[in-house]
Amino acid sequence: MSKFPNNIFGIIQDDLVAVEQELYTIIQSPVELVNDISTHLVQAGGKRLRPALYLLCARGGNPRQEELLPMAVAIELIHMATLVHDDVIDNATTRRGRQTANARWDNHSSVLTGDYLFAKAFSAIALGAEKKMLKILTDVICSMCEGEIVQLRESFNPDQDEADYRLRVSQKTADFIAASCELGAMSGGLDEGDTAQVREYGYAIGMAFQITDDILDITASAEQLGKPVGNDLRQGIVTLPVIYALKNSPHRDELRSIVTKQNMSDVDVKRGLEIVHEADAIEYSYAQVNHFLQHARNILPVTLNGSLRDSLLSVADFVGLRKF
Amino acid sequence: MSKFPNNIFGIIQDDLVAVEQELYTIIQSPVELVNDISTHLVQAGGKRLRPALYLLCARGGNPRQEELLPMAVAIELIHMATLVHDDVIDNATTRRGRQTANARWDNHSSVLTGDYLFAKAFSAIALGAEKKMLKILTDVICSMCEGEIVQLRESFNPDQDEADYRLRVSQKTADFIAASCELGAMSGGLDEGDTAQVREYGYAIGMAFQITDDILDITASAEQLGKPVGNDLRQGIVTLPVIYALKNSPHRDELRSIVTKQNMSDVDVKRGLEIVHEADAIEYSYAQVNHFLQHARNILPVTLNGSLRDSLLSVADFVGLRKF
Repeated sequence: MSKFPNNIFGIIQDDLVAVEQELYTIIQSPVELVNDISTHLVQAGGKRLRPALYLLCARGGNPRQEELLPMAVAIELIHMATLVHDDVIDNATTRRGRQTANARWDNHSSVLTGDYLFAKAFSAIALGAEKKMLKILTDVICSMCEGEIVQLRESFNPDQDEADYRLRVSQKTADFIAASCELGAMSGGLDEGDTAQVREYGYAIGMAFQITDDILDITASAEQLGKPVGNDLRQGIVTLPVIYALKNSPHRDELRSIVTKQNMSDVDVKRGLEIVHEADAIEYSYAQVNHFLQHARNILPVTLNGSLRDSLLSVADFVGLRKF
Repeated sequence: MSKFPNNIFGIIQDDLVAVEQELYTIIQSPVELVNDISTHLVQAGGKRLRPALYLLCARGGNPRQEELLPMAVAIELIHMATLVHDDVIDNATTRRGRQTANARWDNHSSVLTGDYLFAKAFSAIALGAEKKMLKILTDVICSMCEGEIVQLRESFNPDQDEADYRLRVSQKTADFIAASCELGAMSGGLDEGDTAQVREYGYAIGMAFQITDDILDITASAEQLGKPVGNDLRQGIVTLPVIYALKNSPHRDELRSIVTKQNMSDVDVKRGLEIVHEADAIEYSYAQVNHFLQHARNILPVTLNGSLRDSLLSVADFVGLRKF
């Protein structure tokens, strides 16, 4: 998936460089294999969206400088830990065009490295962060685990509706992005009302972001995605465009029989995607994305200073525009 | 493995009952599958050694009652999370005579439930515990992950020496038991010297405990263990008795060829255990257990009150005597 244009995060560029350096430093372990796997994961990059949003929202106030970096790093480490466990769970072989840790090493070391990254995340902030900030993060991890387990349990189940989907996306993605913004507002010392609004902005960005991800899994090319197209469908993950097509397509019975197949052939996946495309499910899903992005724009506190508001608005624009 | 006799933990009996109840309460999730797996793990029981030691050491001073229960619960949840991930990693099918979570459900849900338990553990103490206590726990988890990864990397490697083994056992087991005691002393408000001694007691108990575990994997019956005999050998985990026999047995070359086999037959395992037995490796290993236990008894602060000292001494006695 593409990176955010640099100018969006211009006002926190130095912070992000520091986060990148600190990620490499904090994962250092006397155990070589732990280093190798963790370094591979940091090098794999990613958009660093969560720490960036945390930092932006913190800059909306007057953050204590010594709190900023550890919290931004902790947020990204937690995200990395969930990704490495997700890749084990999904048997994924590539992410962002690179081999996953489980493919390059093995599932077992990957599970342990994920645990290590979770622990390092909390280790980074245990002494510095406010207690209620720690609690927000632990609760978000519980929520993400619940979301992933529900996704696993409901895989290949064509009888999920949009409400099921939205809850799952909240738990998997939006709650964490909301928390990243909320924690930023707390670090910046924003008042309660503004903090709640910034959190809601993050939630809406998270929903839009995940729905876009789910759309791109259907519409982008493998080269653009850095992983195979139709991956979700193949794994039985029933996303918004598929839910819409299962309800509205003239070929919904055929799609239903594809969705429930535990071992889909390439032909099945191709035909499934075709039915989804023809059902206008992509347009419907993008309308939902735009709805969330509009809400994100509207809910941003008017008290935020101009350049910061501009950055947060640009994030919303970019999430809506990205094509891979 | 056998439970501790009730009288050892008599003075914290009420606390342990409360821990048991709270474990069931805290794991409750709106997601049924998370509940089912977590409840299965709590029901599988175990000795609750770590929370018991925490509580005993806390009772050596004047703990804040409201800190005790969450910390004891968090300690056991972290232990449970490591066990469920270990079982995934070892492909274990039984633990304590019951099906493991990965066998009864699947690896994927088990990985996520382990993550959930880690997060619940820190969620339980995020608001109440002192920050340095949180830091002790996160650092211990990092250490445990490192120990497990080294164990994985060094499996089927016959060229490990006793120093490698001791480091691995420290990281896997003793550091966490040491931390449980240290956290207890901190909750009790013991002075720095006593806290350091209580920590050292826990470390020695932990070393003795794990070496005993490794001995029993060779000497106990499958019924006693609640899992197959010779499991470590079969998985390539080279434990102290094997390290000793690899150095001192007249059949060390034969043992070496067995240890390095990635797919050991039952006959291989049986013959391997036989060589270990004949090399007096069990006696040698028990001597190490007794050395650590004696150190545990000697290092206990003299300032601890009588019944508490008696309990902690009884723990040392029991670790030395248990036969399964």
